[in-house]
Amino acid sequence: MNSSTPTLPAARLRRFAADAFLAVGLPKKDAATCAELMVRADLQGADGHGIFRLPQYIRRIRGGAVNVKPRVRIAREAAGMALVDGDNGMGHVVMSFAAKTAIRKAKTAGAAWVGVRNSNHAGPASLYAAMPLEHDMVGLYLAVGNANHMAPWGGIDLLLSTNPIAIAVPGQNEGPLVLDMATTVAAYGKVKTAAQRGETMPEGWMIDHQGRPLTDPKRSSEGLLMPIGGYKGYGLALMFGLLAGTLNDAAVGSETVDFNADDTTPTNTGHAIVALAISRFGKVAEFKRRVDKLARELRGSRRMPGVERIFLPGEQSRAKFAERKKLGVPIPEALRASLAKLAGELGIAAL
Amino acid sequence: MNSSTPTLPAARLRRFAADAFLAVGLPKKDAATCAELMVRADLQGADGHGIFRLPQYIRRIRGGAVNVKPRVRIAREAAGMALVDGDNGMGHVVMSFAAKTAIRKAKTAGAAWVGVRNSNHAGPASLYAAMPLEHDMVGLYLAVGNANHMAPWGGIDLLLSTNPIAIAVPGQNEGPLVLDMATTVAAYGKVKTAAQRGETMPEGWMIDHQGRPLTDPKRSSEGLLMPIGGYKGYGLALMFGLLAGTLNDAAVGSETVDFNADDTTPTNTGHAIVALAISRFGKVAEFKRRVDKLARELRGSRRMPGVERIFLPGEQSRAKFAERKKLGVPIPEALRASLAKLAGELGIAAL
Repeated sequence: MNSSTPTLPAARLRRFAADAFLAVGLPKKDAATCAELMVRADLQGADGHGIFRLPQYIRRIRGGAVNVKPRVRIAREAAGMALVDGDNGMGHVVMSFAAKTAIRKAKTAGAAWVGVRNSNHAGPASLYAAMPLEHDMVGLYLAVGNANHMAPWGGIDLLLSTNPIAIAVPGQNEGPLVLDMATTVAAYGKVKTAAQRGETMPEGWMIDHQGRPLTDPKRSSEGLLMPIGGYKGYGLALMFGLLAGTLNDAAVGSETVDFNADDTTPTNTGHAIVALAISRFGKVAEFKRRVDKLARELRGSRRMPGVERIFLPGEQSRAKFAERKKLGVPIPEALRASLAKLAGELGIAAL
Repeated sequence: MNSSTPTLPAARLRRFAADAFLAVGLPKKDAATCAELMVRADLQGADGHGIFRLPQYIRRIRGGAVNVKPRVRIAREAAGMALVDGDNGMGHVVMSFAAKTAIRKAKTAGAAWVGVRNSNHAGPASLYAAMPLEHDMVGLYLAVGNANHMAPWGGIDLLLSTNPIAIAVPGQNEGPLVLDMATTVAAYGKVKTAAQRGETMPEGWMIDHQGRPLTDPKRSSEGLLMPIGGYKGYGLALMFGLLAGTLNDAAVGSETVDFNADDTTPTNTGHAIVALAISRFGKVAEFKRRVDKLARELRGSRRMPGVERIFLPGEQSRAKFAERKKLGVPIPEALRASLAKLAGELGIAAL
């Protein structure tokens, strides 16, 4: 994104997104939850998961694919786990409930694993992994992606998604350390963003059915996303799919509904969130000091020629967050136009 | 390994390893546990983690670095978690205790996260992730490696290990699916094996301090292992280190003791094992049918030109296990000689 891209303040984006969700029937609280989390994604620099997704979310709601008034509930539970049924609500609403459930259970059980089914796309993984942080807990999040863009290693059938993992760990003066990564070299959101901006993809993001590099994002439907580490990334995507999908009776493999192309079918999206109460393992302050020590050691490492700085997971998102909170979120012209069109369709005030 | 390498039956290797551990003071039960798990690693084809490690383990025990009569105990616990203190016992003994603890707790809590500190190198990750399988549970295992061979992304100081992850999921007629991977392109055990066999490493396994490929395994001390997916693998290694190490007050970063070079210092190795009771999430038989369905879909995918077969995680190890159970475990001459030398030193019957 070049520096001449116009920006808008986060509060304005949040209001616009909330208005859009209200206009299609979400309760006020849920509309606010979705707007807040989507714009947080934008602030963190996860452009492929922010307000960029609004027209698609609204299209799917209007198509009947998403339930605007879900009864999100705990379907099964034991001391250290729960299975949340999202009743096909917006993923942001369902996952907020699931994260709260994991935190609440971890307060007594020390650790809690919460599986989720009948949910929808919920934006960047880090949003949910980070929710336990303010309770002095570690968060871990897994999800089944909402479109298959990867094949099993050596194959060409699109049977796997970019199934991401996020892990968030609090520090004292450093951190929090927040890893958020797809199991592919590039997340599909990045491919979509590149296509919208008319940019070329680097070699290594995608290959075609003969295994040749594919760099035109407009031809992405003819190719496969490459897993990280070859067969290792394939293995991670598969196992995360089993944990976040199969274990919860959510969709995986050929059951996955492509939410980019389909506006009417529920996705039965699966997630998993784990909360670990640090105080059950030892003293919280000592843990945070150890995290700080490790963070400083890594940052202080001698560097390869040409490397200016060593980053810790989440550091760049946090810098982006601070910058965009001050200067606003860049909204390219094409995105602005699609949001203006949406405002017209919904009869809400334009951005 | 070429096909003319002489083989030995697993039972003989087990007896030899158990004799060696007995000779240096392990109780009979613990000697049998270590021997059983080490030879299981050999049977599965994890040559860098099997009997190959015996001389090193014995050297460290004789050097006083490992406690042969540990009081392995639960130091802290709540309904969904436990922290196991290994009292510096052999990793195989400590981790067997930790896996049993996770399984026992998951029976009532539905899910249990067990952290481990004051342990030692425990062999391949899959051994422990697979332990919950026979209880119709999913297993997940993380560990801090016992030597730093990786730098933070862009750095050259060896501050991170190959911190592995293993995940095991049972199927009905397919599977189990068992992923076991280091967060580096190659595990360091593979580098050691290549050095012992006089083989060259492929480009991509290691780089030197200028970022150039390093392919001579005898020069491995001058280089860094490459993480999978560049900064992503660095992020995974770091976060797994925080979960398996820092959370349990086990060693990470500069605290890591290189167990290849040091025969006297306890390593304070950290691990984490998670058990998930499938029956708490839904019907076990239905879960296994869904796993089978996904496994068959993936295996049945159309293939890239030149690809003969699509594999599922754990499939090749299982085939190797069956083959070696029948034909024996290949023991190259150099390894045979080092084991004969060990037998002489300990005054036990040679292999």
